[in-house]
Amino acid sequence: MTVSLMDPTDISKTQDVETTPFPLDRWYVAALGKELTDKPLGRTLLNRAVVMYRTPDGQIHALEDRCCHRDLPLSLGTVEERGVRCGYHGLLFDGSGKCLEVPGQAKVPSKAKVSAYPVREQDSIIWIWMGSDASSEPNCEPPEYKVHSDERYRYDGDVYHYNAPYQLIHDNLLDLSHLGYVHLRTIGGNASIHMNAEMKVESEGDSVRVLRLMPGSTPPPTYTAAYPFKDKVDRWQEIVFHPSHLEIWTGAVDANTESLDDPNRGGFHLRGFHGVTPETDETCFYFWTQASNPVSNPEETMKLVIEQTAMTFDEDKVVIEAQYANMKRFPDKPMIDIHVDVGPNRARRIVDRLRGA
Amino acid sequence: MTVSLMDPTDISKTQDVETTPFPLDRWYVAALGKELTDKPLGRTLLNRAVVMYRTPDGQIHALEDRCCHRDLPLSLGTVEERGVRCGYHGLLFDGSGKCLEVPGQAKVPSKAKVSAYPVREQDSIIWIWMGSDASSEPNCEPPEYKVHSDERYRYDGDVYHYNAPYQLIHDNLLDLSHLGYVHLRTIGGNASIHMNAEMKVESEGDSVRVLRLMPGSTPPPTYTAAYPFKDKVDRWQEIVFHPSHLEIWTGAVDANTESLDDPNRGGFHLRGFHGVTPETDETCFYFWTQASNPVSNPEETMKLVIEQTAMTFDEDKVVIEAQYANMKRFPDKPMIDIHVDVGPNRARRIVDRLRGA
Amino acid sequence: MTVSLMDPTDISKTQDVETTPFPLDRWYVAALGKELTDKPLGRTLLNRAVVMYRTPDGQIHALEDRCCHRDLPLSLGTVEERGVRCGYHGLLFDGSGKCLEVPGQAKVPSKAKVSAYPVREQDSIIWIWMGSDASSEPNCEPPEYKVHSDERYRYDGDVYHYNAPYQLIHDNLLDLSHLGYVHLRTIGGNASIHMNAEMKVESEGDSVRVLRLMPGSTPPPTYTAAYPFKDKVDRWQEIVFHPSHLEIWTGAVDANTESLDDPNRGGFHLRGFHGVTPETDETCFYFWTQASNPVSNPEETMKLVIEQTAMTFDEDKVVIEAQYANMKRFPDKPMIDIHVDVGPNRARRIVDRLRGA
Repeated sequence: MTVSLMDPTDISKTQDVETTPFPLDRWYVAALGKELTDKPLGRTLLNRAVVMYRTPDGQIHALEDRCCHRDLPLSLGTVEERGVRCGYHGLLFDGSGKCLEVPGQAKVPSKAKVSAYPVREQDSIIWIWMGSDASSEPNCEPPEYKVHSDERYRYDGDVYHYNAPYQLIHDNLLDLSHLGYVHLRTIGGNASIHMNAEMKVESEGDSVRVLRLMPGSTPPPTYTAAYPFKDKVDRWQEIVFHPSHLEIWTGAVDANTESLDDPNRGGFHLRGFHGVTPETDETCFYFWTQASNPVSNPEETMKLVIEQTAMTFDEDKVVIEAQYANMKRFPDKPMIDIHVDVGPNRARRIVDRLRGA
Repeated sequence: MTVSLMDPTDISKTQDVETTPFPLDRWYVAALGKELTDKPLGRTLLNRAVVMYRTPDGQIHALEDRCCHRDLPLSLGTVEERGVRCGYHGLLFDGSGKCLEVPGQAKVPSKAKVSAYPVREQDSIIWIWMGSDASSEPNCEPPEYKVHSDERYRYDGDVYHYNAPYQLIHDNLLDLSHLGYVHLRTIGGNASIHMNAEMKVESEGDSVRVLRLMPGSTPPPTYTAAYPFKDKVDRWQEIVFHPSHLEIWTGAVDANTESLDDPNRGGFHLRGFHGVTPETDETCFYFWTQASNPVSNPEETMKLVIEQTAMTFDEDKVVIEAQYANMKRFPDKPMIDIHVDVGPNRARRIVDRLRGA
Repeated sequence: MTVSLMDPTDISKTQDVETTPFPLDRWYVAALGKELTDKPLGRTLLNRAVVMYRTPDGQIHALEDRCCHRDLPLSLGTVEERGVRCGYHGLLFDGSGKCLEVPGQAKVPSKAKVSAYPVREQDSIIWIWMGSDASSEPNCEPPEYKVHSDERYRYDGDVYHYNAPYQLIHDNLLDLSHLGYVHLRTIGGNASIHMNAEMKVESEGDSVRVLRLMPGSTPPPTYTAAYPFKDKVDRWQEIVFHPSHLEIWTGAVDANTESLDDPNRGGFHLRGFHGVTPETDETCFYFWTQASNPVSNPEETMKLVIEQTAMTFDEDKVVIEAQYANMKRFPDKPMIDIHVDVGPNRARRIVDRLRGA
């Protein structure tokens, strides 16, 4: 796979702002598994209002978030063994969207039903199938994410709401050169080293892989706080883009001690899961987890890693939301590409293709 | 009058959201009497910005809420014996909307006037006549509400602003079956008893009367806190709908001790006045008072009754505003009717007829 | 110059609300000099998003507020000797808008540039040239304001954001008769004296001068707090309107002690600078400074004068924003003119002419 350092494809602002459709007939992240407890959870995904709930036996279900009687969101209702009960007049719906009971009425009208969405819980992530129409059924299982069950790692995560369309988060994560400008307090480091990192971009099917190596770097604050580095480090950043999520494996070893090609190398590791799911054309959800391999004081170290990761992603949110607001203030101005845009632009072409653009 | 337990009329969502007109040429509640003190009160009613004020002699007046000079709301001005004075350059307007004085100018321009609205204060309620055009004059007096002057009761009330159209409050009040799901903390009780209550629906002219009887009920928290019930109770709910307001008489007697047909029966009584006035097509005001017959510690008991009534109506507001927001998220989905919708649907037909729909 | 006390020209509300253009090819106030420190300052002026910054050598520059790479506002970046650096990927722009550096990339694309605006710092005010098109160059220097360097005065000021179009502030400042209704806590005084003040209105070129004399007035709270008046005072108000700003010279001397025609008269002086710059068609910025001549305890007195001036302008903001919100609620209702509108209406005709209306 060749690496082209200057990609001629412009980001078309018109597309970002005005195109409605997202890639459909695929799994998207709907929630982190820990979010679904004993209460229903309402969330708009790809412009569809969805209620998710977990019955006492642990099963999860997703329905359209409305009672078919008077439109109260079912997410304001309560969960029972047989399903979710509306909080206004008590209509009970099962996981297929069928109304099982109209309190006080002998017969349940045949029209009393709501739409259901296929959902799966896998690797502590809730995936939802977003079809192009009501008859669309999953033709595959959701993506696996084995890091969450890998004994070498501990992890935690959170859900962020973004006032920006989903592809701006793709751009941000596929181009980690911004670390030296945006994240100096945590995982940044010398801007020049980031901007001049050796970069390799590969595509395969619907995926893009960006590999960046920064030997001889000064470790940034989060790294030194979490790991006993001696001095300079050899850093790596490996970003794998999929249309529904990105996997980012970053870290460092003491400089000149281990090969960055060795999959079992030691040092400090951060393995991020980044689910990016459109809410509307202009907003999205960002589901992230961060795993690491604490070498001592694992609880304290993980607390620090998660706090600093959250701080880092807070910084990204400020930048991306400001960027989008500004894109709307300058709708007709062209953007120019620079060398770090190769990965983001490949991902945009994949998304364009998947949505039939 | 026959009672039909399943009404085939659908609520048309399109009508709710898009229809502009309200029934006109009639009295609406504009304020509770206690709201009008020594300052003008600005409020939009049926899409018209109105300022109300009470002159020192106790008279009330209502004008369009703008100075005809530079459009400052007169509700930011001050009240004098002769009328309301603008807070910008001091133009003075009397209760007919005529400008009496332009400070510093000998002659008042003949065009210097604003519209006036007929208003009445009756039973401690301020009513305003909302005509179909500027020449519309009241052809009747406002509705009476004698409970406010009945010596058997004490009462208090409040004004709520709703981000939902007025008819959703009609629906809510005409269908008290929701008490067992929405108001468990206060006036609820067993959901099954509420949903299966014996119900009688009668219409006459522009009114609908819903009578619901629940013998052998467990008294809900507000009832037991306010009245020394011995054990089970016989509960009643009588709701009378008028296009501008509803009267709701609820309560209970110790089970099997008194006839619910006896208008002078004892027990615990709640008599609610519910003025529902559109603000705009999508918002409204809800003016409520609650009267009760405290048998001991009247001040404390009434304080409790009013607090719990407010808590109850807060719960309704959450439900109704969420319902309306969701109706807008699902504009094309049909709603289905259930058995408790007979009363609400009759009221909707009356409102439709009165607005010429 | 004759004085006409009743001007027949109506304010056309349609014009206020719907007309887009402002007078162009002229200087507007962009900031107070003290606002530009070591961080870039983003501000929308005449519907154009602008970033202003001051380099370490004290020079000021203004660019369009976007990086040409991915649209992040440059106002989120950092200032260096050579220019402003984007906070996302570090592109550096000089004061002409040219990109000097793309970190990590040898060649800067020729298209990598943003628009620049002519700016001047004069009398501690930052002026920006707003041309009708990109090629417009200043054909004059910005207005002088010598009061800021006059040794007889001390001054301070602030910037207010208004949810109202700029011309409503012109109206307000050109018609100080409102002081007796709006500003009783500070610079008001007897409403009748204000509304009946002798008034002279003169026009010349693009300027309007309103002179108001109020001999034998009771000094208002701010005056007595700041100056040892003996009893009654002779007050003056001189307002000079220019399309971009107003100069207002007010004050008082002890009654019958000095001629108000004497430019070197004593007494208490307030000299206000009022830059009024549209932000959008419906919003604007109000840049004000207030200078005075404290006769004792100069620091304390000036603190009091500035506090009371801010309080006064807060009151105006409440009135003007309420006025504009109400204008939008009553879009079709005519406004009537009164005697104090001569000055404001002349200014409106000048603005109309300058924007080619």
